[in-house]
Amino acid sequence: MTGRPQVVIVGAGFGGLATAKALAEAAVDVIVVDKRNHHTFQPLLYQVATAGLGVDDICYATRGVFHRQRNARAMQGQVVDVDFQQQLVHLADGAPVPYDHLVLALGAVTADYGVPGVGEHGFGLKNADEARTIRTHVLRRFEAADRTDDPQIAAAATTVVIAGGGPTGVEMAGGFAELFHRVLRRDFAELNLNQARVVLVEGQDRLLAPFSPKLSNKARKRLERMGVEVLLNTQVASATKSSVELDDGSSIPADTLVWAAGVRAHPLADRLGLETTRGGRVVVDDQLRVPNQPSVFVIGDLAATPSTEGDIVPQVAPGAIQGGRHAAEVIIAELHGATTKPFRYKDKGSMATIGRNAAVVQLPSGITVSGFAGWAAWLALHLVMLIGFRNRANVLVNWAWNYLTYDRGSRLIIEPDPVCLDR
Amino acid sequence: MTGRPQVVIVGAGFGGLATAKALAEAAVDVIVVDKRNHHTFQPLLYQVATAGLGVDDICYATRGVFHRQRNARAMQGQVVDVDFQQQLVHLADGAPVPYDHLVLALGAVTADYGVPGVGEHGFGLKNADEARTIRTHVLRRFEAADRTDDPQIAAAATTVVIAGGGPTGVEMAGGFAELFHRVLRRDFAELNLNQARVVLVEGQDRLLAPFSPKLSNKARKRLERMGVEVLLNTQVASATKSSVELDDGSSIPADTLVWAAGVRAHPLADRLGLETTRGGRVVVDDQLRVPNQPSVFVIGDLAATPSTEGDIVPQVAPGAIQGGRHAAEVIIAELHGATTKPFRYKDKGSMATIGRNAAVVQLPSGITVSGFAGWAAWLALHLVMLIGFRNRANVLVNWAWNYLTYDRGSRLIIEPDPVCLDR
Repeated sequence: MTGRPQVVIVGAGFGGLATAKALAEAAVDVIVVDKRNHHTFQPLLYQVATAGLGVDDICYATRGVFHRQRNARAMQGQVVDVDFQQQLVHLADGAPVPYDHLVLALGAVTADYGVPGVGEHGFGLKNADEARTIRTHVLRRFEAADRTDDPQIAAAATTVVIAGGGPTGVEMAGGFAELFHRVLRRDFAELNLNQARVVLVEGQDRLLAPFSPKLSNKARKRLERMGVEVLLNTQVASATKSSVELDDGSSIPADTLVWAAGVRAHPLADRLGLETTRGGRVVVDDQLRVPNQPSVFVIGDLAATPSTEGDIVPQVAPGAIQGGRHAAEVIIAELHGATTKPFRYKDKGSMATIGRNAAVVQLPSGITVSGFAGWAAWLALHLVMLIGFRNRANVLVNWAWNYLTYDRGSRLIIEPDPVCLDR
Repeated sequence: MTGRPQVVIVGAGFGGLATAKALAEAAVDVIVVDKRNHHTFQPLLYQVATAGLGVDDICYATRGVFHRQRNARAMQGQVVDVDFQQQLVHLADGAPVPYDHLVLALGAVTADYGVPGVGEHGFGLKNADEARTIRTHVLRRFEAADRTDDPQIAAAATTVVIAGGGPTGVEMAGGFAELFHRVLRRDFAELNLNQARVVLVEGQDRLLAPFSPKLSNKARKRLERMGVEVLLNTQVASATKSSVELDDGSSIPADTLVWAAGVRAHPLADRLGLETTRGGRVVVDDQLRVPNQPSVFVIGDLAATPSTEGDIVPQVAPGAIQGGRHAAEVIIAELHGATTKPFRYKDKGSMATIGRNAAVVQLPSGITVSGFAGWAAWLALHLVMLIGFRNRANVLVNWAWNYLTYDRGSRLIIEPDPVCLDR
């Protein structure tokens, strides 16, 4: 206790960390609370799921982020409740944490929209453990295909259906196509991989809805050239352990369904009784505060942040980072009795990588970049964004290796071992 | 089916892979069966457990090992039985695998010798998942210590007891001492780490029994300088969730017990009804064959391989590699109706790293190396031994980073997340 105002930030994603960093010079104490002890670099989760990177390559211990920031520290804790009256954050385990300013930055979780079977059989991709789970499952199914004499079992075991043709779905489809055709074809030389399928299912009439139709078209063509089956105007109707039923009545025998078709705001917002709107996102004013709760900010994917176009800010990393910086600005201004301008979201454009030498980039000016140039831009941006030199160097080594050899070094099935002293 | 004799190797450790590689030019088909889909570089498991390396850095997909070896392939499968009459290997899942020659190279598992509580509360260190489990557990206990106001809970949460002062125990103790004092001290600035303890418990009167007493003494002194408490002539009598009882009647409040005090041969040997001796190791003749089973070889930690000194070969990587090469030689000789000389184990010496700039090396000639020179030798050997350029480059990047910054990039708690679509 220093007597300085205490800022508690819940969530160590892009938004939470940006808030904490923007408060580095302020006369406040900052505590970042997260259920996990690490930041997850979500844009590269698809690489872990498709065996290109290891889990440790895209995670970074949150406490390490603040070794050089004296007024901030991290703690691992699951927030179960907030007492807005007493200004206390309650954790599942341990003493409550008092706050003067609270920044909720919990992000989004996978939403299955109640589609039957998706909750039990679909795989989400919102954290490192889920990414590793997908990788493990797909590799195990390939091993099972290799052990069976039944061609129908083998076909389902080597088929991946991806629901949702947004950036995540496109990146997953491209990643799996490369994994299947470049790497697993060599790993499983005796397996008939002609029946191995990567199917991308999108409800709208084009992929990558936030991009220009030209780029959507390029992405689809490129994916198809890589062997991905792209089904537009189609939705997943239900799923079982070994099949995916579509809304046109057809069925795909597939042991793997990756659900990239929707997210919703973290459910804590509902539990706290905050007013929410579309996708469970919390209503905030133009200073990113909860109405009538001047000490509580909500930022990033959790917030229904008003954008200047009258819409709400999209759930992307730049939105969270800008929101975090703005919340910090408001807190600093208050310390000096000053005021701040309303939050203004600046569109940074969108990018999605499709595969080797191919990405699509949509700049806010309307300029589009694709192919190798887009891919190079994607690569450079993601390396720069990755927190911490160490991870960056590792990722570079892995990517260089994968690029030069068409190999995927992380195709490892790591699971608990019942024989030894495990628990 | 090529009509060529089929060699089935069970286990993708050092012994199994050495056997397969030594058969690369032989007119046989080789199948390597392992419960996991990857080779684990066991000498570096302690680095994963102490947050220096990621799991993916020390594992290598077995199928990838044979991309360039045409006569060999890998498959994932758990061997549950062998029909020596029909020459069939039965798997938990899938069709049985017929063999003409069988090489059993299943290695060793942790043995708790029935010490009460060790089975439930002790952590073994024989595979990557166990190493990650130790890392996760220790980091979670530090987070718990940070959340509690009870100094006794905090003391137990930040204390690690390591049972067994062999190379694994010494390496774990040194790794934890560095993690605690160099890294976690900065991560947990508000925690009183003076009560955090690393205790190494050894039943004999010196550490590193296979080394010269001079090196044993050096290792002990170095560990003590690093803050490790070394208890000689002491054994763990029992363990609970939060304490370790010693045979002198004293008790250490500790939430973590790492069990490096013993291994035994893989239990499959017993299940197959093979004759075993000390530590469950299978009796083999001087050609590494099971007596009266000329088509069945047992190598590595699983075998009680006779050594020229009348003793049995120690359970170390060079023993397994040499055994594997010998078994391959015998198989090749048989193809040509030739015979081979009896197996002769060549002692390659022993090394154990203690920490930054410190390792002990015992050469068979009696020459010993320690300190920085020993450490440099250890580093070079392990980099050369690591299979695959990619892993080697990653490991080098991680080590260079750790060395230069005293950081440990892998101190990540990765665990299943109950909120999303996990299972």
